[in-house]
Amino acid sequence: MRIAVDVMGGDHGCGVVIAGAKRALDANDEISALYLVGDKAAIHGALPPGGFRDHRVRVVHASEVLTMEDKPVAAVRRKKDSSIARAVELLHEGKADAVVSLGNTGGIFAAATFKLGRIPGVDRGGLAAIMPTCQREFVLLDAGANIECKPIHLAHFAIMGSIYSREILGCRNPRVGVLSIGTEDTKGNELTLEAFHLCKQLELNFIGNVEGHDLFCGRVDVVVCDGFVGNVVLKSCESLAVTIFSLLKDELTANPRRKLGAMLAQNAFRTIRRRMDPDAYGGAPLLGFNGAVLKAHGAARERAIANAVRVAAQNIQHRVNQTITSEVARANQRLGLAPASVDGTPAKN
Amino acid sequence: MRIAVDVMGGDHGCGVVIAGAKRALDANDEISALYLVGDKAAIHGALPPGGFRDHRVRVVHASEVLTMEDKPVAAVRRKKDSSIARAVELLHEGKADAVVSLGNTGGIFAAATFKLGRIPGVDRGGLAAIMPTCQREFVLLDAGANIECKPIHLAHFAIMGSIYSREILGCRNPRVGVLSIGTEDTKGNELTLEAFHLCKQLELNFIGNVEGHDLFCGRVDVVVCDGFVGNVVLKSCESLAVTIFSLLKDELTANPRRKLGAMLAQNAFRTIRRRMDPDAYGGAPLLGFNGAVLKAHGAARERAIANAVRVAAQNIQHRVNQTITSEVARANQRLGLAPASVDGTPAKN
Repeated sequence: MRIAVDVMGGDHGCGVVIAGAKRALDANDEISALYLVGDKAAIHGALPPGGFRDHRVRVVHASEVLTMEDKPVAAVRRKKDSSIARAVELLHEGKADAVVSLGNTGGIFAAATFKLGRIPGVDRGGLAAIMPTCQREFVLLDAGANIECKPIHLAHFAIMGSIYSREILGCRNPRVGVLSIGTEDTKGNELTLEAFHLCKQLELNFIGNVEGHDLFCGRVDVVVCDGFVGNVVLKSCESLAVTIFSLLKDELTANPRRKLGAMLAQNAFRTIRRRMDPDAYGGAPLLGFNGAVLKAHGAARERAIANAVRVAAQNIQHRVNQTITSEVARANQRLGLAPASVDGTPAKN
Repeated sequence: MRIAVDVMGGDHGCGVVIAGAKRALDANDEISALYLVGDKAAIHGALPPGGFRDHRVRVVHASEVLTMEDKPVAAVRRKKDSSIARAVELLHEGKADAVVSLGNTGGIFAAATFKLGRIPGVDRGGLAAIMPTCQREFVLLDAGANIECKPIHLAHFAIMGSIYSREILGCRNPRVGVLSIGTEDTKGNELTLEAFHLCKQLELNFIGNVEGHDLFCGRVDVVVCDGFVGNVVLKSCESLAVTIFSLLKDELTANPRRKLGAMLAQNAFRTIRRRMDPDAYGGAPLLGFNGAVLKAHGAARERAIANAVRVAAQNIQHRVNQTITSEVARANQRLGLAPASVDGTPAKN
């Protein structure tokens, strides 16, 4: 399979992205082509003299970059030669099978919307964050791409998240919940009440409403909500975890006695770090588009990027999109909707 | 001042609540009366033989309790003799100055709405959660009382939260933010965009939108959002913190070497526990009602309850409600609303 990596837009420059992509390439024989998409001069500057000497690596020039300051939709329209646009075009043209990017999330989403279009029957694509917990991870979607959602969007997120959890994260029968403020089916707002009703009718392991309290204790594998709520939860929890671990570090290094204690117990901290390491998941997949697109963290380093490329490859191997297509069609039929209510062609650019 | 404590509805029985209330009484000379409201037999069973021998303690009988399973509004209407209803009535009748309860949050809120009514000019009361961080706490409201909100509700939450932060938490010039999914003023949903616009016009130290990332790193003192978002954030973050600390405990006790390390560094963990201890804040105040009401955690133990009673007393000393009344009136005038658009009398029961 062929992976296109948008090497621009990461916090640590394109050298780190290229190194991570190469690492994935070395570890995965199934990758038949790796496109490095971005500024040619920057890419060649980051490559070792003479390049990688791997016939699978191809450099695709793009003269522009979407920055974090760019307004996504306008920027994707204006910057025709941006690295994310070029990477997604490779996918659309059938030259690549999956795209990995570290750039502006909104920009990646807009490029996917305009250039790939959605899977037939899927009304809205979703951004799925993989949230580590102490037991196993859960999928949270939408994590910020769709600020306002309709109930059917949450139902589709439930299907897509469930497939991702099963195929990529190896969860056999993912428990799916609607994020709400009480577990009873009468609790929630208009959106969640109706989404609950729709999800109940689908072929899912639907466990009903889940609350914030349920998220990190292993009770649920897929959590659906609108992108506003999802983004706030994702970022609040990231912020809290960072705060606790940095507080822990400060306190454990405050005097020689504590430092000695921390040294003796260091494997405990390593285990926790490994268990709660978001880098292991490679990034957040965009689900529901005609093509596999993975958003890696802007601050991702070599290992996280290598994982992102590996996960993108798994997406193809496990035929995630084909499964989404058939399960969404079946769900729409069950709900009395046209199996493919949206024609799936790219939106006008 | 006179404090009414609803001793029923806590997870650990009324004995713990009574002991906590007595501890507060012993430490605060300003408390001139302490009402213990609940089942007389249960209260007398929990008191030492002959009672507390403190003339300030009075037992007020209530034959019913709102349970966690009760639907709040219906239960407050049906159970006329519930402990929370009786406690709030003492406030309404002018016999008490503040109420503390550990019971069903919705029930407390419904009792306050029906029996106290809202401060003139305040459209919706809010539940304010005090969230500990590694630096200083922040106030999050609404934390779950109002599932759907209008922009003006968020503006009033901003004013009330700011006053609480200043008067009770000692923050000199509280920074107020609207919880959204981007810091630019164009980011957010309909509710937050309009709330941003209203807050900008008020006499607040308004810092604009804040994201989940900003919450735990000391950038903001008062965070406003609708009760759905607030409740999800509150519970998710509680759940994550509990998960991290329990994981830490498991790992640090996994073998003798780690146990020794943890013992040497134990002061580090104690400092963190103290800094992030929600019990220190006594509970979540209900803001915007004609009377000071504080919801303590259902699982609160003696110390947390004593703090709740102390904080309830501070509410009165610092004239929180009087300040809310005048600042909301001034804000409404600024926004072109009637200073007291709501008459403040109790809703019909």
